[in-house]
Amino acid sequence: MVDCEYRQEADSVGSLRVPKEAYYGVNAKRAYQNFQITGTRLDPLFIDSLVEVKKATALANMQLGELEQKVGEAIVTACDEMLDGQHLDAVIVDPIQGGAGTSSNMNINEILANRAIELLGGEKGQYELVSPTDHVNRGQSTNDVFPTAGKITFLKKATSLLEVLERLEKVFQEKAEKFATIKKMGRTQLSDAVPITVGREFGAYASVTRRNIDRLTHVMKEIEVINLGGTAIGTGISAHPDLSKTVEKYLNLETELDLRIADDLVDGTQNIDSFAMLADCLKTIGISTSKIANDIRLLSSGPRTGFGELIIPAKQNGSSIMPGKINPVIPEVVNQSAFLVAGNSVTVSMAVESGQLELNAFEPVIFYCMIQSFNALEKAFSTFIDNCLIDIQVNEKRCEELLESSTYLTTGLAKTIGYEKAAKIAKQSLADGRSVREIAIEQGISEDLINELAGSII
Amino acid sequence: MVDCEYRQEADSVGSLRVPKEAYYGVNAKRAYQNFQITGTRLDPLFIDSLVEVKKATALANMQLGELEQKVGEAIVTACDEMLDGQHLDAVIVDPIQGGAGTSSNMNINEILANRAIELLGGEKGQYELVSPTDHVNRGQSTNDVFPTAGKITFLKKATSLLEVLERLEKVFQEKAEKFATIKKMGRTQLSDAVPITVGREFGAYASVTRRNIDRLTHVMKEIEVINLGGTAIGTGISAHPDLSKTVEKYLNLETELDLRIADDLVDGTQNIDSFAMLADCLKTIGISTSKIANDIRLLSSGPRTGFGELIIPAKQNGSSIMPGKINPVIPEVVNQSAFLVAGNSVTVSMAVESGQLELNAFEPVIFYCMIQSFNALEKAFSTFIDNCLIDIQVNEKRCEELLESSTYLTTGLAKTIGYEKAAKIAKQSLADGRSVREIAIEQGISEDLINELAGSII
Amino acid sequence: MVDCEYRQEADSVGSLRVPKEAYYGVNAKRAYQNFQITGTRLDPLFIDSLVEVKKATALANMQLGELEQKVGEAIVTACDEMLDGQHLDAVIVDPIQGGAGTSSNMNINEILANRAIELLGGEKGQYELVSPTDHVNRGQSTNDVFPTAGKITFLKKATSLLEVLERLEKVFQEKAEKFATIKKMGRTQLSDAVPITVGREFGAYASVTRRNIDRLTHVMKEIEVINLGGTAIGTGISAHPDLSKTVEKYLNLETELDLRIADDLVDGTQNIDSFAMLADCLKTIGISTSKIANDIRLLSSGPRTGFGELIIPAKQNGSSIMPGKINPVIPEVVNQSAFLVAGNSVTVSMAVESGQLELNAFEPVIFYCMIQSFNALEKAFSTFIDNCLIDIQVNEKRCEELLESSTYLTTGLAKTIGYEKAAKIAKQSLADGRSVREIAIEQGISEDLINELAGSII
Amino acid sequence: MVDCEYRQEADSVGSLRVPKEAYYGVNAKRAYQNFQITGTRLDPLFIDSLVEVKKATALANMQLGELEQKVGEAIVTACDEMLDGQHLDAVIVDPIQGGAGTSSNMNINEILANRAIELLGGEKGQYELVSPTDHVNRGQSTNDVFPTAGKITFLKKATSLLEVLERLEKVFQEKAEKFATIKKMGRTQLSDAVPITVGREFGAYASVTRRNIDRLTHVMKEIEVINLGGTAIGTGISAHPDLSKTVEKYLNLETELDLRIADDLVDGTQNIDSFAMLADCLKTIGISTSKIANDIRLLSSGPRTGFGELIIPAKQNGSSIMPGKINPVIPEVVNQSAFLVAGNSVTVSMAVESGQLELNAFEPVIFYCMIQSFNALEKAFSTFIDNCLIDIQVNEKRCEELLESSTYLTTGLAKTIGYEKAAKIAKQSLADGRSVREIAIEQGISEDLINELAGSII
Repeated sequence: MVDCEYRQEADSVGSLRVPKEAYYGVNAKRAYQNFQITGTRLDPLFIDSLVEVKKATALANMQLGELEQKVGEAIVTACDEMLDGQHLDAVIVDPIQGGAGTSSNMNINEILANRAIELLGGEKGQYELVSPTDHVNRGQSTNDVFPTAGKITFLKKATSLLEVLERLEKVFQEKAEKFATIKKMGRTQLSDAVPITVGREFGAYASVTRRNIDRLTHVMKEIEVINLGGTAIGTGISAHPDLSKTVEKYLNLETELDLRIADDLVDGTQNIDSFAMLADCLKTIGISTSKIANDIRLLSSGPRTGFGELIIPAKQNGSSIMPGKINPVIPEVVNQSAFLVAGNSVTVSMAVESGQLELNAFEPVIFYCMIQSFNALEKAFSTFIDNCLIDIQVNEKRCEELLESSTYLTTGLAKTIGYEKAAKIAKQSLADGRSVREIAIEQGISEDLINELAGSII
Repeated sequence: MVDCEYRQEADSVGSLRVPKEAYYGVNAKRAYQNFQITGTRLDPLFIDSLVEVKKATALANMQLGELEQKVGEAIVTACDEMLDGQHLDAVIVDPIQGGAGTSSNMNINEILANRAIELLGGEKGQYELVSPTDHVNRGQSTNDVFPTAGKITFLKKATSLLEVLERLEKVFQEKAEKFATIKKMGRTQLSDAVPITVGREFGAYASVTRRNIDRLTHVMKEIEVINLGGTAIGTGISAHPDLSKTVEKYLNLETELDLRIADDLVDGTQNIDSFAMLADCLKTIGISTSKIANDIRLLSSGPRTGFGELIIPAKQNGSSIMPGKINPVIPEVVNQSAFLVAGNSVTVSMAVESGQLELNAFEPVIFYCMIQSFNALEKAFSTFIDNCLIDIQVNEKRCEELLESSTYLTTGLAKTIGYEKAAKIAKQSLADGRSVREIAIEQGISEDLINELAGSII
Repeated sequence: MVDCEYRQEADSVGSLRVPKEAYYGVNAKRAYQNFQITGTRLDPLFIDSLVEVKKATALANMQLGELEQKVGEAIVTACDEMLDGQHLDAVIVDPIQGGAGTSSNMNINEILANRAIELLGGEKGQYELVSPTDHVNRGQSTNDVFPTAGKITFLKKATSLLEVLERLEKVFQEKAEKFATIKKMGRTQLSDAVPITVGREFGAYASVTRRNIDRLTHVMKEIEVINLGGTAIGTGISAHPDLSKTVEKYLNLETELDLRIADDLVDGTQNIDSFAMLADCLKTIGISTSKIANDIRLLSSGPRTGFGELIIPAKQNGSSIMPGKINPVIPEVVNQSAFLVAGNSVTVSMAVESGQLELNAFEPVIFYCMIQSFNALEKAFSTFIDNCLIDIQVNEKRCEELLESSTYLTTGLAKTIGYEKAAKIAKQSLADGRSVREIAIEQGISEDLINELAGSII
Repeated sequence: MVDCEYRQEADSVGSLRVPKEAYYGVNAKRAYQNFQITGTRLDPLFIDSLVEVKKATALANMQLGELEQKVGEAIVTACDEMLDGQHLDAVIVDPIQGGAGTSSNMNINEILANRAIELLGGEKGQYELVSPTDHVNRGQSTNDVFPTAGKITFLKKATSLLEVLERLEKVFQEKAEKFATIKKMGRTQLSDAVPITVGREFGAYASVTRRNIDRLTHVMKEIEVINLGGTAIGTGISAHPDLSKTVEKYLNLETELDLRIADDLVDGTQNIDSFAMLADCLKTIGISTSKIANDIRLLSSGPRTGFGELIIPAKQNGSSIMPGKINPVIPEVVNQSAFLVAGNSVTVSMAVESGQLELNAFEPVIFYCMIQSFNALEKAFSTFIDNCLIDIQVNEKRCEELLESSTYLTTGLAKTIGYEKAAKIAKQSLADGRSVREIAIEQGISEDLINELAGSII
């Protein structure tokens, strides 16, 4: 008989059968039916974060006498199992969902309740033993659980991203030192400007990366402020008055983070401007590194008809038709990741702006995009380091040839002979192909001055 | 012995071993190592599209004498197997990849070559029998294969989306007729304006949806123009001069689409402005439907402290803490999908703008975002129709009460008594709570006129 | 006495004095006090469009017997004066204003009423003679007047932009012909690919420009659909039933456009998705031309250390410190204009999405951004044509040198000797600096084949 | 004779006549001819900032012996005159210009040179007395002058904006206290949730505003880092080695800011990621305040058919056709300004990402958008405070009525009787219209518990 494979569950909408062996329940199943926007499941780290919130709150509720010891312990054990990687196939909801995250919260509540019921000797669905709402969700609301889990996730993702950014800064710094004495032509607006060293260019890349590290570190401070204990709309309704401060302790123990309860829980529930700041910080990190990737693509263009100053390692065939072609595939994926992150920041901004009254219902799409952005940057920068930057080389001969062919000396000359005269020398050199040095000496400028100018490249 | 489980393959970079039984080869494996940006694989429909290009080109090359019959037939059979769902686990590359799609193209070339080799009695890796480049990719370049496959994918996705949009228009139209006689207060700027019917509101939703259908249909015409046969940078180099027109025929047969070869293949290769138009068309479809979702959320707000004019079906528990709460979860996911699509359009625009010279290297992220946008809209609108709109109801009593409580009659009165006098009546009514009718009659306005105005709601 | 220099006016808010000689009235003055967002005034063309709506409606109302002949004629004369450039300093409202455009509409209504009063022998402020609302605004609402005037403005702006785009296509086409026989290296992903001609590149620029012309032309069809006659929320309340069709005729006469009244006036009033499409069309026009500007900057980079294939005319000193430096200032301003237009499209999208119920209150910022976008593109493309493209030149010697130095022949060779062997020749040439030709002949490839390949550049 | 009204000037391009009495010279005139993108002139504050850079550098150069005392003093006097508002009509360049700001820099250099020449007894154009490049621009490059002036401008604008934000926080805080005891229904997802006070809502608005103040303050720290002294591409070429530290002192004296010279001038010249951070910070400020404006529009909707909990002051007639209509015009302009600022942040991001090698040539459009964003926010928030928030009132009766009509008690009940039973009571109450209290008592729940729950609204 097929019927015996199902159990019947009820909610405000009515009654629905779920597979008898499923850890999820009616709420998750309805959400699954309602939402298939991305066709994917929740991010594993986000699931962990939700479970960590559940575990810490169960512990806090037990301490505060809000949860029977036996029930609480079963919930905690179920949490530990999920954190250990079990029952994850019971997380069936799509990350982009209506309902401000209630579906995700309830999916986890149901899994933990059903597993706890089993641990207490019951059968799945016997919610009188352990209820998804009254026990697992005790003293909580999606209003505080969901954003708190999101923030925990971002903090973990940020830790990984910061590690990659540190590596990125280090490799730029190493190249800055390695190439410190290689002179080359500097260009502004793609036009020949004045000389610089390859080292200074990589040093600048290190500097912007350091700034990105500082920015992300600073923005994450905002993300450490959570609204757990605020329950519905930040009022703390139904929660023990000491829940916030008690759960803060347990949650920091569990996550090894430095989370802090918001001073104003009503604000902490309805305003999620911090997510906009974070999404935009990721965008700035992306686009400023994309600029570096653009530079590297440009400087390594060629091999014969481009700038050819840099040589990036060949990582794969560049073409299915042009033999021997090697393309800057690694920097290109940095560009694309930056574009992705930039688009995501617009999505986040629109979602943040659209919050209404006591809650922003659009956190699911925000979380989806932010996790995507964190992952894309981390992966793109990792491959940038390992498959491009570490083995990047300079074509010193090319740098020197280009520099020598240019009219850069005129900028230095201008200080002595004036802008106008120097401009005429430059123009003449470009017109007849003779070197600035030759023309200048012809015009009576001392060779010593010219040598001095040529030697003073930073 | 472990070694026997691998085979060795070579490319321009060097030599690399791949699992002996793998259909993919060295190019795919390097791409897999270089790119893990999203952690996902190519979209199934996009894989199909790539294979369809391969099959059609093999057939065309056979007809033109560019491909030995035996080799060509093996390739075609391998294509048919893939279109039948086989060998898909050999597609291992991440959708966001550097290299303008070469990794995707080569991954498919390698699978088809290795499978064709097997069909011809050889062993995987014996590329002298069937070469991924010289045979499978014959007369092609990633420059033309990749964008052509993207366009085929979008055309298929658009067909699905258009079907959903047609259903959406139909359901709006049905409700427009069903609610045609229910009068209600119209609001501008969230302030009481003049009466309207619920039917006219739904009629407007139908009208904007019809416009969206027309737009998408029109934009897809641009997408039907492909650059196949252009090979590298649109020159047609290495391809038979008749390849374009021959493959057009086979590809239309295979895909049942109406693809057309671009007049200017150089343009068709380097300029992908059509993707920007398409991404933005999807955005307009998204945001204009999001506006409708916003309206429905607002009009169904309550149940007791909101507008309460519409009643949307309850689809799941609205809250993990507030019993009996039902939220507009379905319209909310329409909003979120629209935000996602709006962000994606920015990503696409940045990628389109960043194309350089003879090729735009950033198509992979464009395709990733566009496929996501198509899917999100299709799924969001489907659930909008099935789980919200079909069973939407009007609270007629509420509509009538609100309308009667308002001062709408003054707009009609103004035409007779002038704007200024009418404004005074409105102000007085709002101040002392008496009805406009009562005050107007007191001021000598005929009851007939008032009745006429009250009766003329469109 | 100072007091005599003012007159007192009243509105729903209360009483306010305005300068006695001012054509504007209390509504405009309050708006001026409420809004100083940009510190600028309405665009002259938009003022004209508003006045044209007023004139056409006055004529229609006169024909329909809704407006006394004497009053109507005075209004029409006042309109003609404004269209002739008079009274424009009385337009005092900021273009970004709350109220869905009521301030702009009323500012114009007040000017026309006061001027009409004077023409009838009265004094400014004697609104019993000609009322801004009851007469000038007769049968109208800001709900229909404002968007209609916006559309008229865009149609006029589009005409100018289309003329510039036609000129742009023409100059690209001319260069395509002029440079048709100049061979050069094609590059994909900034890496040497296969040869092409300069003419084909410019031809591609012409092709994308033609597509932009077609797009804008198509989108403007949507913009021709107006909601005049819909009055408040599209109901037509207070307007003569025949007003729509009558005013359509007069307005087309006046504007020389092909405006059409919307079939569904409720939709035409509340949904402004067409503005999103238009803003995005302008964005695509901007970014696809920005890509061309990027190419031209890159190809003209140098003069000594860049690509140096193109020579763009020097238009101004490039540097305040580097003598003789010439920068690609004109293409750069094309880039910047495209970025501006791309940002504006996001503003427009957010505003369109935020419309609520029967009206979108955010048209003022939409109009502001769209007018800015139209102007920026028109001006940027004009200077692009006149100050850059018309006199652009090719450095043929440089093109030839670069081409000859490359390994392009291997792509053609691959068809005969296979991809793998050809790749080895390419690799060897790049490693030891010898030409592909030399290595190929050494390997027994016939000189005839090589000559044929070298001669077949498209 | 007309000719005598002009003087002839020369540059690298050739020779050009300018009006004899014009303070600007050939560089400004060419820029004027090349660029008419916006049709406007430089922002007055930005002109001041440029002049302050010129003055401080002249003083520093005099101290370092780089500039003859007599010439330096004349330049300083000319600067003081400009800072006093003179010669501003000679600033003729469009803010959006190609050339990375050279046109703006040279326009100012020319004005100051010509005015200094006059002060020294010469005639305009006698640049041998005071040269725009050799004297006024001494030790400078557009590369350092232009971004430094931009940053000074932003710091001044930020000071104004922070003052307005402080006022905004204060008014929210005042209302939070004033409305602290007024209970009302809280809503999530536009659906009835649990009670809150009006005061807590305004308190949340104050909290987000405080966060915005902190953010802007923090980001401005980045903007204080300037690259003056870096001259071309950050090398310091042509500048006295001590110029940076000397000019820092003078510039801080002149501007009363706390500017600091960047440690890495090469980075400080080519990377302008800080502008992206600032533009996005402004966006977050905009959209988070837009959310508040949305709430206020929603809560004040009506007067008869909306939420009607808040009463905002009437500031102008709401409609040209609907008498007595009052619209939330002030919050609406906050929304629009936020959309504008959000669009601008995309423009800025695209421009930042597009920087190439040693310089970002797209600062002009960045500055244009940022100044627009600063102004829009400052003006929008000012009118929000003065014309809306200061006199905002609560309709206490309405708040109470709505609250009493709701089923909010069930959330509190759930803690005692369980979620499921409480949900049933809520459902029953909504179905038959009886109060939760009545049904609960009927089901044996003690009246004391109910009273306690009703009394515990935060």
